[in-house]
Amino acid sequence: MSLLIVGSIALDSIYTPFGETADAIGGSAIFFSVAGSLLHPVQVVGVVGRDYPFAELDRLAARGIDWSGVEHAEGESFRWKAKYSYDLQSRETLETRLGVFADFQPKLPEKFRSAEFVFLGNIDPELQLGVLSQVRRPKLVVCDTMNYWIQSKKATLLELLHGVDVLMVNDSEARELSGDWNIHRAGRWILANGPKRVVIKQGEYGALLIEPTRTFYVPAFPLENVFDPTGAGDAFAGGFMAYLARTGSVSEDNIRRAMVVGATMGSYAVEQFGIRGFDGITLADVAARMRAFQDLTHVSLAEALE
Amino acid sequence: MSLLIVGSIALDSIYTPFGETADAIGGSAIFFSVAGSLLHPVQVVGVVGRDYPFAELDRLAARGIDWSGVEHAEGESFRWKAKYSYDLQSRETLETRLGVFADFQPKLPEKFRSAEFVFLGNIDPELQLGVLSQVRRPKLVVCDTMNYWIQSKKATLLELLHGVDVLMVNDSEARELSGDWNIHRAGRWILANGPKRVVIKQGEYGALLIEPTRTFYVPAFPLENVFDPTGAGDAFAGGFMAYLARTGSVSEDNIRRAMVVGATMGSYAVEQFGIRGFDGITLADVAARMRAFQDLTHVSLAEALE
Repeated sequence: MSLLIVGSIALDSIYTPFGETADAIGGSAIFFSVAGSLLHPVQVVGVVGRDYPFAELDRLAARGIDWSGVEHAEGESFRWKAKYSYDLQSRETLETRLGVFADFQPKLPEKFRSAEFVFLGNIDPELQLGVLSQVRRPKLVVCDTMNYWIQSKKATLLELLHGVDVLMVNDSEARELSGDWNIHRAGRWILANGPKRVVIKQGEYGALLIEPTRTFYVPAFPLENVFDPTGAGDAFAGGFMAYLARTGSVSEDNIRRAMVVGATMGSYAVEQFGIRGFDGITLADVAARMRAFQDLTHVSLAEALE
Repeated sequence: MSLLIVGSIALDSIYTPFGETADAIGGSAIFFSVAGSLLHPVQVVGVVGRDYPFAELDRLAARGIDWSGVEHAEGESFRWKAKYSYDLQSRETLETRLGVFADFQPKLPEKFRSAEFVFLGNIDPELQLGVLSQVRRPKLVVCDTMNYWIQSKKATLLELLHGVDVLMVNDSEARELSGDWNIHRAGRWILANGPKRVVIKQGEYGALLIEPTRTFYVPAFPLENVFDPTGAGDAFAGGFMAYLARTGSVSEDNIRRAMVVGATMGSYAVEQFGIRGFDGITLADVAARMRAFQDLTHVSLAEALE
């Protein structure tokens, strides 16, 4: 089962109360693939400029990340500069320089077109539709978006949703898309507009999986030290998708397990700057943290009120 | 095992986007005892003025609420008027009239002094200390507070914490008390200052139980219609304490079950204005909703990453 992501590949400059980075590798495709490759090989489609640190991509290739779908374009790589508040609860974008990302037109290499698991990272919904038209018979299509596209390209986004199995967004995006502030009604609205499931990420509070007749909740891992929230949502997506691709099943039970894998990957992402939280993490570490997640909500109610 | 609460008994006037109430019965002791009495008799200590709707208290007495510790003082009852934002995420206090509550000095009837389970509702920490000095050998003392007391009577509050088994507060209170915005470090700080456990309520995100070596998370029940968040935290406390009093055990497992009972009671509280969400609720309803809570976080990880 092959796993494909189409998304941004960026150079991030991040300021937090604990330090800063300049031109560190980032973007949705980077966080997704670094997290996902702990469980399953990842195929990436994206674009970088001539100034990108290719040695870092080469180093990551050893994890099982296939960069052959990444276009090397003339010009500057996509750069994003942001500053977090003292409590990491909010952030301000200081600068966005699209560079080569401005003219990005995803083209899938022939060998990527048979991917069974497809993640459409947060890019223009027209490009996301273009990717969908290039894959043959995906088993599962999951899609992210952001408020910018909800505001500027809602009709295209709604068209896209009908080709998507799971929409994976954060709570403010779900609210804006549905026009409903109640997160469960917002989830219902999304289910009525195409996707069979919706995953709503809630940062330090965890994530919700809303299905037609059931809801699942995975908390965020309790961390006393959070350094950089950047990329947590993309790492969640990478873990979620890679677990499904690894196991090959999209059963309800398996999707719940994938939620826990996603939350585990999100927790690694925020423990260090950029992708450094994944340094040295093994499959055994992931399994151990997943067990800790299970203990976090474990309660035995047998005969609790007899 | 007897269960005692000392707290406020108020007349609430609440404005939400869905309607309003005027002089409805409320306050921490009301929400606590209405929720708790579904599981176990509740003894209440508080004060009301001559204008309180005593017929309503009489009606509630049939549920097993013992009002004999409620002082009837000359003057007006405590009144609180508040308005919620369109999304119920924030509220503004429009008016607080303390009335007879200004001179409240809790005096426990002799038969209440042997209570095993004691809840100190959010009142002046000097009065909470005064209550503690009147109970003989409580098995479990749980205490609430608010930012007002953290700011104005911190030394007294810190003294109180050393006589308390569980501090039960919301996240902003835990942050203000500890001076730490990270909720898990805030919990550690509280554990280092007296209580053996801390329960941190997070509104629509659920609640955390932080113990020295474990953390437990119970989500909020997924509700598509929330009418009035007032009293949810006190109803949570009532369910939590009444379950422990009913079962007589403060084991780790039982405290986790009590967290689910608390979250269940909080969910009833917000479904209607004031205490109306508890109308007609039976023990079987509570048990059914508790099972729904369990499904909400249920995931089987056996061999997930083998």
